[in-house]
Amino acid sequence: MYREQIRVLDCTIRDGGLINNHYFTDEFVRAVYKAISESGIDYIEMGYRSSKELYPTDEYGAWKYCDDDKIREITKGIESNVKISIMVDSYRVKEQQFIPADETPIDMMRAATYIKYIDSAIELINKCHDLGYETTCNIMAISKEIEPDIVEALKQLAQTPVDVVYVVDSFGALYCEQVEYLVKLYKEYLPGKEIGVHCHNQQQLAYANTIEGIIHNANYVDGSLYGIGRGPGNCCLELLVGFLKNPKFDLTPILQIIQDYMMPMRQELEWGYIIPYALTGILNEHPRSAIAMRKTDQKDKYAEFYRELRASLD
Amino acid sequence: MYREQIRVLDCTIRDGGLINNHYFTDEFVRAVYKAISESGIDYIEMGYRSSKELYPTDEYGAWKYCDDDKIREITKGIESNVKISIMVDSYRVKEQQFIPADETPIDMMRAATYIKYIDSAIELINKCHDLGYETTCNIMAISKEIEPDIVEALKQLAQTPVDVVYVVDSFGALYCEQVEYLVKLYKEYLPGKEIGVHCHNQQQLAYANTIEGIIHNANYVDGSLYGIGRGPGNCCLELLVGFLKNPKFDLTPILQIIQDYMMPMRQELEWGYIIPYALTGILNEHPRSAIAMRKTDQKDKYAEFYRELRASLD
Repeated sequence: MYREQIRVLDCTIRDGGLINNHYFTDEFVRAVYKAISESGIDYIEMGYRSSKELYPTDEYGAWKYCDDDKIREITKGIESNVKISIMVDSYRVKEQQFIPADETPIDMMRAATYIKYIDSAIELINKCHDLGYETTCNIMAISKEIEPDIVEALKQLAQTPVDVVYVVDSFGALYCEQVEYLVKLYKEYLPGKEIGVHCHNQQQLAYANTIEGIIHNANYVDGSLYGIGRGPGNCCLELLVGFLKNPKFDLTPILQIIQDYMMPMRQELEWGYIIPYALTGILNEHPRSAIAMRKTDQKDKYAEFYRELRASLD
Repeated sequence: MYREQIRVLDCTIRDGGLINNHYFTDEFVRAVYKAISESGIDYIEMGYRSSKELYPTDEYGAWKYCDDDKIREITKGIESNVKISIMVDSYRVKEQQFIPADETPIDMMRAATYIKYIDSAIELINKCHDLGYETTCNIMAISKEIEPDIVEALKQLAQTPVDVVYVVDSFGALYCEQVEYLVKLYKEYLPGKEIGVHCHNQQQLAYANTIEGIIHNANYVDGSLYGIGRGPGNCCLELLVGFLKNPKFDLTPILQIIQDYMMPMRQELEWGYIIPYALTGILNEHPRSAIAMRKTDQKDKYAEFYRELRASLD
């Protein structure tokens, strides 16, 4: 599937950071930045811009905050055309976190929000757009939202300068026909905007659903190295690049960093296809119950977990 | 997706046997048979019916041959409505392997073939149908076949009493649009026959492509417990059952056997998402090169493998 307009974003550091409180070594982040740059990927997401008042710096690594100086330190000396994005939970923003884009290494601000907080995303998007950033709105947990609420949010976003609006399958619950429905709905109510898809892999559908989004003209797609991310993780960047058949991409640096860094890391951190997460995905639920049970000595008691999960939802 | 006509086949023992030369313990096979029976799955495939002349019995376990008495021994005393299938490589058949269906515990014979040996499958199907078996034709490596050859084979199969013809993505190379194309092609040339899909998981698409087949009216679908199968394995049965939303299926016995048997087995046998297999899938190649390299001390040298694989295909 070659389409010139498609843009790929690597969210390895940002989404991966959710499983280690954003404590990655500088060596690793630098290696990822270098590999992503060499592979011709369009964007790299370095982490979150979180308030240090709300999230104390003794509890999180540097990529929870993405200070400009930290980004400069990591990227220094590496030849790169990759654009840098950071994500902001728009409903947890404190003032004075943003300076004009031309004074920072950041190109794009992604506003993550639930539909109920869409006003906070719009405020952030307007502010960041005025400061010169590319902007996106990543509407999370979309598999739990009813159409009138989605449509209302999309109509409001259509009035903003936002560049891209993402379908975010936070619960890894969507099947391909639902992705088609949502991408078409977004296209209908967001004339002139780009649509993105960000999928999670609870049911081994992140990559397939990303393809489905592309088929229906979503042009912004996210992946991470070896799928790293919370729980089951994300669409695998290596698969996505294999699919896109675009000569601007080079798979080799991606394979190299997977073998050098991701495979050893996978021995320390858990992500991938894990039954309790598959079950929360099947049931269209937040993965929090799976996250909790995986920290106990009952972590492989799948049948019991399923019984309890269903009982808790009845 | 509820459709009464859909039939699910568990191929745990048959496809899983490809990674251990069909040496499963009786305890395990019995536990699988019991769990599959309790879960309401329609068919269980016990293995291959191979010639002992061609495949010496000191090199393979019992499920390479699926002797009737062995099947009876395993299933004895377990209450079950599950139908039993076995697979036959139709192009490696010796005479006198089949007796009338009503004298055996076997309900369905699945003839596996490449297009070039379709005549052997047709011969086998005719013979087995006359003996009273349900029959299928599983056309392997379909991602490498050109349309005129596929159409010719389908036209011949349309003239046989075969019940089901399967799209088999042996190389895990198909994307959803290709599954749609093939299932529609099969439907067009096989009026009155059922269509099946058997997918492999090289690119994490086995489950998604199985859903795609179902959407386009394939009614026979294969899965295995925790996806066990050669290399990346198969569509995960547990995900498929989660999707089908059919009250006749019960996910709990499936989860129980995964936790009791499949997770320990996965510590001994390798299957699942493994980068070299993903690369053979992306390149639409037989997994043999990945199988070979995973047995060497270079098994995690992905970038080099990719370079060599591409060079070997140029």
